[in-house]
Amino acid sequence: MSTPVPVSEPNVDRDRVIIFDTTLRDGEQCPGATLNVEEKLIIARQLAQLGVDVIEAGFAIASPGDFEAVYKIAETVGTADGPIICSLARAIKADIKAAAEAIKPAAHGRIHTFISTSDIHLEYQLRKSRPEVLAIASEMVAYAKSFCDDVEFSPMDATRTDPEYLYEVLEAAIAAGATTLNIPDTVGYSTPEEFGALIRGIKQNVRGIDRTIISVHGHNDLGLATANFLEAVKNGARQLECAINGIGERAGNTALEEIVMALHVRRQYFNPFLGRPVESVAPLTKIDTTQIHKTSRLVSKFTGMLVQANKAIVGANAFAHESGIHQDGILKNKLTYEIMDAQSIGLTENQLVLGKHSGRHAFGARLKELGFALTELELNSAFVRFKEVADKKKEITDWDLEALVNDEIRQAPSAYKLEHVQVSCGDRALPTATVTLFTPDGEELTDAAVGTGPVDAVYKAINRLVNVPNQLIEFSVQSVTAGIDALGEVTIRLSHEKAGVFSGHSANTDIIVASARAYINALNKLHYALQATAQRVDSKV
Amino acid sequence: MSTPVPVSEPNVDRDRVIIFDTTLRDGEQCPGATLNVEEKLIIARQLAQLGVDVIEAGFAIASPGDFEAVYKIAETVGTADGPIICSLARAIKADIKAAAEAIKPAAHGRIHTFISTSDIHLEYQLRKSRPEVLAIASEMVAYAKSFCDDVEFSPMDATRTDPEYLYEVLEAAIAAGATTLNIPDTVGYSTPEEFGALIRGIKQNVRGIDRTIISVHGHNDLGLATANFLEAVKNGARQLECAINGIGERAGNTALEEIVMALHVRRQYFNPFLGRPVESVAPLTKIDTTQIHKTSRLVSKFTGMLVQANKAIVGANAFAHESGIHQDGILKNKLTYEIMDAQSIGLTENQLVLGKHSGRHAFGARLKELGFALTELELNSAFVRFKEVADKKKEITDWDLEALVNDEIRQAPSAYKLEHVQVSCGDRALPTATVTLFTPDGEELTDAAVGTGPVDAVYKAINRLVNVPNQLIEFSVQSVTAGIDALGEVTIRLSHEKAGVFSGHSANTDIIVASARAYINALNKLHYALQATAQRVDSKV
Repeated sequence: MSTPVPVSEPNVDRDRVIIFDTTLRDGEQCPGATLNVEEKLIIARQLAQLGVDVIEAGFAIASPGDFEAVYKIAETVGTADGPIICSLARAIKADIKAAAEAIKPAAHGRIHTFISTSDIHLEYQLRKSRPEVLAIASEMVAYAKSFCDDVEFSPMDATRTDPEYLYEVLEAAIAAGATTLNIPDTVGYSTPEEFGALIRGIKQNVRGIDRTIISVHGHNDLGLATANFLEAVKNGARQLECAINGIGERAGNTALEEIVMALHVRRQYFNPFLGRPVESVAPLTKIDTTQIHKTSRLVSKFTGMLVQANKAIVGANAFAHESGIHQDGILKNKLTYEIMDAQSIGLTENQLVLGKHSGRHAFGARLKELGFALTELELNSAFVRFKEVADKKKEITDWDLEALVNDEIRQAPSAYKLEHVQVSCGDRALPTATVTLFTPDGEELTDAAVGTGPVDAVYKAINRLVNVPNQLIEFSVQSVTAGIDALGEVTIRLSHEKAGVFSGHSANTDIIVASARAYINALNKLHYALQATAQRVDSKV
Repeated sequence: MSTPVPVSEPNVDRDRVIIFDTTLRDGEQCPGATLNVEEKLIIARQLAQLGVDVIEAGFAIASPGDFEAVYKIAETVGTADGPIICSLARAIKADIKAAAEAIKPAAHGRIHTFISTSDIHLEYQLRKSRPEVLAIASEMVAYAKSFCDDVEFSPMDATRTDPEYLYEVLEAAIAAGATTLNIPDTVGYSTPEEFGALIRGIKQNVRGIDRTIISVHGHNDLGLATANFLEAVKNGARQLECAINGIGERAGNTALEEIVMALHVRRQYFNPFLGRPVESVAPLTKIDTTQIHKTSRLVSKFTGMLVQANKAIVGANAFAHESGIHQDGILKNKLTYEIMDAQSIGLTENQLVLGKHSGRHAFGARLKELGFALTELELNSAFVRFKEVADKKKEITDWDLEALVNDEIRQAPSAYKLEHVQVSCGDRALPTATVTLFTPDGEELTDAAVGTGPVDAVYKAINRLVNVPNQLIEFSVQSVTAGIDALGEVTIRLSHEKAGVFSGHSANTDIIVASARAYINALNKLHYALQATAQRVDSKV
């Protein structure tokens, strides 16, 4: 393993860091964050706007829905000047074939195949020997290469793999044609120094490594994911796999916004590691940082994964000194307490743009400016909702528009349709709800129920009409903007014994109405999932 | 500065890491997290249970309320075998005197004084020269020492201070009697390597440093706070300043749970840096990690700072593989995907303990087991609430009990008292609320209002009766447990032009009733703040 590595022509920019976004694959894998195809497409478009180099759009073999999402993203976002579209695949022929088919429409496609290499995974997960896994890795990378020039290979649980064996597997993958080698800290166990040393060891000991890009994939179980990546960059990693808001299994993936902003704010510090002079002002990544805040909000809404106020970069308080806190130091000199501008992540004033007298044209124009591409039909129904809200709420802001439009267009195709809900409650009353809805067969049904509170009463009335046993496992409401007449955004998650967890979402000035709509939304997702009998295959890197 | 450091007898354990908790000082300083004295006392008791070495209980000079909180914590939690109780003080005589008086009842007290040392802060914030600041630091440490043997000194914005000047200031502080030297990364700008190098430089260049403890204080603006601390430990830091859930200004302080669990899970890696053999199994800190989950929930509830699902260690998903996700690998061998046990942070099954037939004795006994020390009066009113809820909700869990009791005992002394609330709403109705309340003078008032939704209607009806202009800036609801009949916990924040931001909190099976109570709760806090004319003094380390 210690033979000198032959010098080869680099086939990529070595002075730039490639951002590989896995929000739609690893990010979506966390409990209840499930997205439908339409939602994935909207997020993928926004990721392209953000300027990510690679979108891991899904795990094509997992289900027909996953396949469709990867295919549609490849078709619409994978343009000639767009990002690389990637699908995950286990080191299994059927997986690789499905991935290859799903990414086919993309101008630039990638197959990302993986197999565990740590002894503990070999023994308990794969029940295979080291030579067996080595052979599979080599064979399956070659198989992927037969479909696609751009092949990424991941030795899963790399940070707990014997380094000498890891080098061997990586050499075999390079020999078989892998162009990117991804080193995952699958269980989030590594410290920055260890992770940096691992990357350094790979760079020094793997034959042919200079012809490939070293990538890293990290989880935040000990709060070290961002630091681990920075140390990897210092030691030669040139692709970073991350997710918006750091979503993903357990404590999630490395947060895109943190790693990108750390590289951005500290670019003078990191320049020399990329072979540049300290004083270079060229950005280290291709990310348009002013799209970060918008992308964060979009992903949070669609996945129902809330971002805490003290989350780095994208939390509501991250730039709170902007809003009158510690004005003293700030007013005297911005740099006293500020290392980034709020503007650098696109956090601008939440503008008041529309009111009850705004017309359809102004409404459509503002939505276009906000990056929504709606069909005529969608625009019409969004405008009806807008007028309803504008009647109740004096000032309609960009965030309100976002909430309204997401609420309209992200509903699953209606199976059940809420027609009417009405509630009375109070501390000395029995909360009582009356609900009318249309079933998938178009039948109109009405019933009432008493509950422990207004939401319970509404859900019990709906259950009487729908009769699909499920458990509500989470219920939350957040106000969209400040103000007593703000829209409330309700996110719920329900669990079905066989079909899994589904989220529902709705925004309304009346949080009881929003709760009813969110529940119907989740029931519709459940309904379609029960129809699609395909089983999900589990992936993990 | 490069004279060899004289060898001196260490006056402390050098093979252990001291945990300094600043949840009640720096943590509480984030917008809207304001706690009242009673809440601070409950958290301080829990921090003692958790086993922190030092509690920074507040900033005594800031307001009479802050002084009272520090004093009461010193009195009740600062016992002979309890933690050190610390108050912050600017390098100003009045501050130090107030701190000294506030910590007086503690068996072990500490004064923590600070002054900025970076050129940018000297120029824009302090408008003082380097020699002036050096003299002040020395003089004020000596002044603090005249009250208290245990004195901590912080050169604010240390990571942006010229190292040579920093060494000088630290030497002066040691000469004046400082026993702990704290190095704050005030703006969250440092990378782990830089921060480690800074600590190493201090250890090598500051005369007398071996007689003191090197402490670190960090902010998470770039997501690097935990990694920075680990690197500091490797280079000789022995006290870590952190906050539960990482709360604090902007992106918050270093999270206690992350740094403690990283040191715990990776203790074999960190042992040598503390001069221990690799194989030692002695814990690196005195923290009882099984108290982490409970402490996290308590702080989240009292401050209203929600913890996101993908937060490391304490997020709802951090151990989600425990609950049926990826059972395959997990069942085969726990270590396949798990580096920590959920039990290690005290995350056990949420037990069903009580029902509608449970008596007052069983109720009281369970609360005692959960660590609540209630007066007879508090127990009585909590039991009344329990019975109300048990009538509506079949199964009462530990989390429900926590929510109920916190709701009962954490209400500010009632100025306004909600007597009755009743609402009707729906998608074709005008949301209408009727409210009856008692004013601080004991007058009973009733009014009704129409709103854009049921919460808006309730708040408008209350506003008609209370008439204290304020803006609602945040409204959120979270379910306490799964299940359609779950309690809903409402957290609101309102902003008053002069008095600042106040949070209100309430739990009820009816979220509209909880919303009304949360609003009254916040209005009561505002009422008392308007009465206390004292101005808060701003602190920042």
